[in-house]
Parts: sequence; C-alpha cells; structure tokens
Amino acid sequence: MEYSTPKGMRDFLPDEMAERELVLDRIRAVFRKYGFVPLETPAMENLETLEKKCGDEISGQLFRIDGGLALRFDLTVPLARVAANNTFPKPFKRYCISRVWRREEPQKGRFREFWQADIDIIGAPTMRAEAELLACASECIVALGFPKPSMRVNNRKILDGMVRALGIPVENEFAVFRCLDKLQKIGDGRVAEELAAKGIASDKIEKLIEFTKTDGSEKEKLALAEKYSEEGAGELRLLLALCKEYGTGAEIDFSLVRGLDYYTGPIFEISLSKEIGSVAGGGRYDNLLSLYGQADCATGISLGIERLMALRKKKEASSGPRVFVACVKEEFYPDALAVASELRSRGVPCSTDLNGRNLRKQIEYAAAAGASYLVVVGEKERKEKRAKVRDLASGEEKEMAFGAIADFALTKD
Amino acid sequence: MEYSTPKGMRDFLPDEMAERELVLDRIRAVFRKYGFVPLETPAMENLETLEKKCGDEISGQLFRIDGGLALRFDLTVPLARVAANNTFPKPFKRYCISRVWRREEPQKGRFREFWQADIDIIGAPTMRAEAELLACASECIVALGFPKPSMRVNNRKILDGMVRALGIPVENEFAVFRCLDKLQKIGDGRVAEELAAKGIASDKIEKLIEFTKTDGSEKEKLALAEKYSEEGAGELRLLLALCKEYGTGAEIDFSLVRGLDYYTGPIFEISLSKEIGSVAGGGRYDNLLSLYGQADCATGISLGIERLMALRKKKEASSGPRVFVACVKEEFYPDALAVASELRSRGVPCSTDLNGRNLRKQIEYAAAAGASYLVVVGEKERKEKRAKVRDLASGEEKEMAFGAIADFALTKD
Repeated sequence: MEYSTPKGMRDFLPDEMAERELVLDRIRAVFRKYGFVPLETPAMENLETLEKKCGDEISGQLFRIDGGLALRFDLTVPLARVAANNTFPKPFKRYCISRVWRREEPQKGRFREFWQADIDIIGAPTMRAEAELLACASECIVALGFPKPSMRVNNRKILDGMVRALGIPVENEFAVFRCLDKLQKIGDGRVAEELAAKGIASDKIEKLIEFTKTDGSEKEKLALAEKYSEEGAGELRLLLALCKEYGTGAEIDFSLVRGLDYYTGPIFEISLSKEIGSVAGGGRYDNLLSLYGQADCATGISLGIERLMALRKKKEASSGPRVFVACVKEEFYPDALAVASELRSRGVPCSTDLNGRNLRKQIEYAAAAGASYLVVVGEKERKEKRAKVRDLASGEEKEMAFGAIADFALTKD
Repeated sequence: MEYSTPKGMRDFLPDEMAERELVLDRIRAVFRKYGFVPLETPAMENLETLEKKCGDEISGQLFRIDGGLALRFDLTVPLARVAANNTFPKPFKRYCISRVWRREEPQKGRFREFWQADIDIIGAPTMRAEAELLACASECIVALGFPKPSMRVNNRKILDGMVRALGIPVENEFAVFRCLDKLQKIGDGRVAEELAAKGIASDKIEKLIEFTKTDGSEKEKLALAEKYSEEGAGELRLLLALCKEYGTGAEIDFSLVRGLDYYTGPIFEISLSKEIGSVAGGGRYDNLLSLYGQADCATGISLGIERLMALRKKKEASSGPRVFVACVKEEFYPDALAVASELRSRGVPCSTDLNGRNLRKQIEYAAAAGASYLVVVGEKERKEKRAKVRDLASGEEKEMAFGAIADFALTKD
C-alpha cells in the first residue's frame, strides 16, 4: 500500500525546501525594509467570510471543511476581515507570506496548494502607495537574482471610461474586463468571439481590442487615457513620475486588465520578459474592505512565489551540513562533539556520526548528505587540536587548528 | 454583520507575529546548526494516511475536507509518508516548523491551529541520536532567552518490563501507559481509579504508582531499571553519559510515560521548572515508519511553540519601522525617498509619508506605527544632506549626515 501526496500538492524535499526558505526569507527581508509588518491569520475562515468576496468560480474551488469552514483561497480576504475587526494606525502596511489553497485542475506550474507573498497598504489614497508597492516588489525580484524587471501599469478608471464611451452597459463591464484579460493567453480571435457571445457589437469589439494595443510614447498614451478618464490619467501620470523617483520605471500598457472584479484604480504587473508571463501583480481595491464592515481605501501586490521559484536558474541554498565531523574511533566521539559544538557556537551547521560507523562509511555518508567539508578527528588531531579540513567537492585538504575551522567554513564559498 | 476568526483559532497581529517570526527563526537557526534539513509537506493528507496512525481520539479531532482529505494533526505522519516514498542518505535528519490542526475543545493555551517545531532522525539506532535531539532542543530554548532547561528521560522498555513483571496482560499495556501519563495532571487518586476501571488489581496499581515515584541517585535508579529491562537501562545509561558530553545533563524520571502508543525506547521531556509543564517532548518510535511501508528506526522531539511563546516574558521584536522619514513639504518627498532608499540599502526598515500629510500628522503616525526614530527632511536638510535623528521614545535628538543615519539606527538599541 502506498500513501501518496494529495492531488495537485507537493512535498518539498530538503534541497528544494532550503531553496524555498531562502527565497521567502529574502522577500521577507525586503518587505521589512520597506516598513511592512507581518500579519498572519488561520489557514481557514468561516465559509461566509470567504464567499462574501469570491465569485462563483473560486467558490467552486474552495476546500470545504466540516462545520461551515473552508481553507483560504488568497491572503486578501483574511486581511480585509482583520482590518474590519481591528484598529491600526493608517496607513497600515502589512506583509503576509503564506500558503493558500484552490481546488483547481492541476497543470504545469499550477498547484492546489501554493505560497503567496503579498504586501498591501490600507488607508493611503495617493499614488505614493502604489509606487512603494512597485519599488518594493521590484527589489524583491532583484534580491532573488533576477535582472531589474519591467513594470506595466494601467488604470481601471481609464478602461471603465473606454467601455462607457463605447456605450457598453455598465452591468457588462466586468465581463468585458474578464474577456480582455485573456488577450495574451488565448489571442484576439477567441477574445473577440467571447465578447460577441456577450452581445457586444463587432465594431465595438474591434475598438476595444485596438485600444488595448495602443502603441506610442508615454505622452501619447497619457493623452489618449485622458480622453476616457481625467482622474485615471492623472493617477497614471503621478505613478509614473514616482516610479522614476524610485528608479524603477514603468510603462503604460492598456492591454493590462487583470481578471478580478474588485480593482478600482491603478492596476499593475511585473514581468521578467515579454515571453514569460507576469511574476507579480496587483492593484487598488478601494471598495473591498467595506464588504467586511470597515470602509477604507487599499492597494496591494502579490508576488507569484511558484513562478519565481520555477524561473530561478541558479540555486543558492544547499540543505547539507556545512561540515561533517567524523571520528576515527568510537572513543573519540566526545572529541568530535567538542569540535562540532565549537563550530555550532560560531553558527556553522554541522553533523557528527550518529551511527557509530567506521570511518569510510562516515565519509560516504558525509558526501551523500551534501556536507561541504569533512573534518576527521583521530588520535593526533585530538592531541594537537588541529585537523585537516577536506573540501568534499574538490578533494583539496588544508590543515588548521580546530579554532580556525569555523572561519574557514564560513568564508569559503 | 461581523466576520469572526474560526473557533479556537487566532489572528496574529503585527507585534505578535513579529515576535513569533523571531522565535521561529531562532529555532530554525539552531536546528540548522545541528545539521537538520527542512522538509515541508502539504497542510492536508489523504484521510487514510492520517487514520493509519491516529487513534480514535485524534480521528475525532480531524478537520475533514471534501474528497477524502483532512488537515494534518502532527508533523510525524507526513514525515513517515515522505520517508516511505523517498530514499534519503541515513541518518536522515529533518526539521519542520509548521502548523497543525486539531478540532479539540479550545481552552487556555490550547488552540485548534498551532505551530510545532519538530526535529526527527530516521535511521540512527544509537543513543547518539537522542542525545543530539536533547542538546539541540535545549539550545533552542536557551536561544529564546530561557535559562538552561531541565531534561527528564525514561525508557518504554523499562516501563514495559515493569508492567510485565506485575503480570499485567500485554494488551492492557498501552492503556496503563495512557493512565500513568495523567499522573501530574489528575493526581494519584484519579489515576488509580482509572486503572481499577481497567481491571488492574489494587496491589498492582499501588506498585505501579510507587514505581513512578522512585527517588534516589542516578545509580540507584539505573539499578532498579535494570531489574525490568537490561536493554532499557543500558540505553538510559548511555544517553545520560552522552548528555553529559553535551553539557546538557538529564535526570531519570520513571513517572515520565508520554501518552502516545508508538514509542518503543527512550522517551524524554524538557521543562523550564517543576511547576510549568513540559515545553518539549518526544521519544523513539522504531515501528511507526513500517506502517507506511518502509521499516526504519526513528526518534524525534517536538518543541511546544505555543507554550514557549506564552512563557516568554521579554518581547524582543518590534514590528514598527526602525526609521520614519518625514518631509516638511510635498515637494521634498523625492528627497525623503532618497534618504529612505539609502537606509533600506543598508538594511534599515523604514517608512515614508504615503498620504501627503502635514508634518505634525506625519510625526503622530510615526509614533503610532511604532517607529523608533524620526528623520525630518526640510529645505535645510536636503541642501546640507544632514538631519536631526529623533529618538521617538526619549525625544532626544542628534544631528548627523544622511550617510550616518543607517549606522546610527542599526547600532542603537
């Protein structure tokens, strides 16, 4: 009988998990530098809390639990609930790096359990908030070893104005947005078909799609935006100026729509290249919090941890111990422990022989377990308090005093 | 309409979560120093995986999910499943610091969602494994600011021998252990009643309880232990000797039983004092892994995060930004950003004014958000690239060049 991992979910074996911890730690460090504070909530929420926000699609993807509960499908709903039940100094800038669950059909890169890393700002109405989110997210991506990413920004107020200008009924607006959001994924032809199925006239469909493809200088795009929403264009202009202050830069992209209904203003996505989809995205959602009983403006961005993990080429973490301290004879084990203890006190991860194996087997194990260095404690070593440190990858050896091993192991790559 | 946290679960607001992150980070750092490697598994498992191990009591506490799944109730079952499905160099030393869920009746200090921090060693049959677990757990507790804890050890083989010597049928053994495990909680009288209800004769009950209270020197206790299990006594002796090598020390306590059925050898608990219950506990479970298809010996210890968090008196983390960079006028915001950017590049968490507020309101916010220092950028400051740094707690001010603020903020407590 074999016991498997639940469908669409993964075990993270040590090397993989060490890498994941490194990635999450780096992101957290950047979040903190920007003054975001941690907030964690239970993995599950009352069903009614979740269903207040999620549409039918996500409702069908909930992992429901006995007793009117379900696992959270994002980190925004719990934030909205907590914000409604507590009083924080505003702006309230919180980060959350944690797991969410959706019962989607698993496919390459899509899992039923996955991590999100979100920063959100509640109670800051100006574009300074968005610019900070983008700068912070961009710095996270650079901290993970990627080149400076490109940022695309748009504004729902402009899209809204465009849709209204075409005379498309307001009640169809979100449906239109959800269609347009698929442009990159399914192409113009199929988006046009879907829009037609929603009763949009073909000349309007043409104009909509043409608008999303608007090319030109920033100035030209802003002039066009102004035609549809002065407010939206003003926000865009301000955001772009602030992004320049941060040195991050950003580009207007009218094809950026984002699928969620609740965005009300600026929306944004961060990509590593045109070919690869976005690795982070978000927007302003000024009306969501009032659903949970406390009206306040809010804006946020979410880093796609799974995609970032998959795109990282160079792995930086190793789960193996830095040093394995072997001993030649059983009776030297206390000496090996003393060496290990000093290394540990200096912060060097190390392991000793727990099985009372012979030296050859100890060395085999050290290599298999991914240790970087080997120290062997024998008669001579315990007496002289010096040992050879062997680089297990290259085979090179270097003799040094016990007290020097920690520095060596810490500084050598 | 108010949306609440699910019963028995908690939101971790920023100050609390910052403290929790600090605690978990410290524990993880110690785990790593001892050469343990991370392993993470999904929050949920197939129901059959969980029910393979858990008894009726825990089965009734499972959070069941549609489609034959349930949330994990501990970190050991997932480890056993992963160990059965993968090949690791042995000994395999893994840590896992993560959440588990049990639908128990919530009470003070007991929650339906809680963190565990476990280290386990698979494939090391000797007491060196147990000694390492105890040393590592003890160091974690010290790293959290507690004095060196006391360790109590016992061995199921000895308890087993004792129960057999009394002629109690083997099939009653675990029931007896579970009763004895409650000695500290419910007292001799009620344990005796429970044992009587299981059909144990009163003279045997008396002897059992008397045995658990055995006092005397280590030598005397070992001599007594030997009467019931030479193997168990030998393991105890070896473990105590190794604990001395680690400088941790340990005491034999025959009243230590541990409630779980699956322990097969050494069992242990770590306490901060007699009055407070244990903060960590574990034991050897050599037969558990074979349930999942791969026989191997194993031993582990689990730190009680919730209890440790509750017992920590001095909080060390603050979630507020280290520095708040205010600006006197709107137009100086880019200068404030430049100061913030330099501070961030040096690793100093800081925030700027996202709302375009007047200076007084910015300062009020900085204090409310828990910032340690305030820097105000005005005409003079931006020109001279110098500013006063105000300690928001004491009100003290010190003028320095922009470039010196990071060092100041990092070194000052």
